[in-house]
Amino acid sequence: MDSSTPASGISEGAARRRTGGRSARVRAEVLDAVGALLLEAGYDGLTVDAVAERAGVHRTTVYRRWRDVGGLLVDVLDAAADDTWTPPDTGSLEGDLAALNQEVYEALASGTGLTTALIAASFRSAEAAEALGRFWEDRYARCAVVVSRAAARGEIPAPADSRALLVAATAPVYHELLLLRTAPDPALPGRAAAATAAAARAGAFS
Amino acid sequence: MDSSTPASGISEGAARRRTGGRSARVRAEVLDAVGALLLEAGYDGLTVDAVAERAGVHRTTVYRRWRDVGGLLVDVLDAAADDTWTPPDTGSLEGDLAALNQEVYEALASGTGLTTALIAASFRSAEAAEALGRFWEDRYARCAVVVSRAAARGEIPAPADSRALLVAATAPVYHELLLLRTAPDPALPGRAAAATAAAARAGAFS
Repeated sequence: MDSSTPASGISEGAARRRTGGRSARVRAEVLDAVGALLLEAGYDGLTVDAVAERAGVHRTTVYRRWRDVGGLLVDVLDAAADDTWTPPDTGSLEGDLAALNQEVYEALASGTGLTTALIAASFRSAEAAEALGRFWEDRYARCAVVVSRAAARGEIPAPADSRALLVAATAPVYHELLLLRTAPDPALPGRAAAATAAAARAGAFS
Repeated sequence: MDSSTPASGISEGAARRRTGGRSARVRAEVLDAVGALLLEAGYDGLTVDAVAERAGVHRTTVYRRWRDVGGLLVDVLDAAADDTWTPPDTGSLEGDLAALNQEVYEALASGTGLTTALIAASFRSAEAAEALGRFWEDRYARCAVVVSRAAARGEIPAPADSRALLVAATAPVYHELLLLRTAPDPALPGRAAAATAAAARAGAFS
């Protein structure tokens, strides 16, 4: 997974990019420890004590600042959303959607990445589920420009429902890799992008 | 959830429809107990002993026949697939896809149904994940007729990739309700169906 520009993937070590004082360093170490433990042992391996030990910070520091596993997961997701990511600008709606889908595909194709682990954790923790929903809504909001640019170029009728269009484009990638768990098909990101762009040109989202 | 015709929903008490001797009755009681426990306490509440107690059968019977929780989940999913369900036939591709999506929507909208619980369990048990994949692939195969009928009516160019079309139509419903966990929008099933039908008419799956 390309940790610099996750569309819907969640970058490993996102918090590390933040600079700052001791408090920011502690946060980066703790959140990296959460990600490492999730990848190694999943939700069941994630405890406040294990995180504190892995991060090399006192457990009371973790309890005070994050309270519990739910609080840790929420902060991982909030940190992942706190970046400067912007969607691709390839010059066409289909190209932009294919590039977005490619990022999702790369985040999920292994089945063992942090994005997959966090999604699995969202079925265990209501707080994590909410934070993941916020992460994705923020991504859809940032990607609205992909749709408005397409409308401005006259590719699709305006106004278009950008969120519905973006969900339609990306959902098949999540569905195949996360729920159906089919073998990764490199043609999938482009195929889902092409179908959604065709629907959009036909006015399905306008 | 309409337990008689689940498209991708998994009917509660599916095994009970099977008639037969004592062995079939035991199976029905055990699988119903698995469903009931999943709904009450999720995967963490599902143990062979709890299933045996709920079903009123001896625990060694359950161990011998199903071995463990994974084996029980696999059999619930295999029993759900062992039905006579056929896809809706409304006379148009968009109508058929909307009816299919409506079934998925009804299975998932509450967030607390058996389908949601089994999908959550598939993130805990590799065997359940495989069985769920088989269940869905069987549903997609049965639904291929929706696409071939549309091609025969001249609605869409033939031949069309029925599986890709069906995934595109249904994936947004799963994505919104299961991953984004947005409030259920009754317009969602029809909107996703209309967009995919438009893409199909434009030849996106041919």
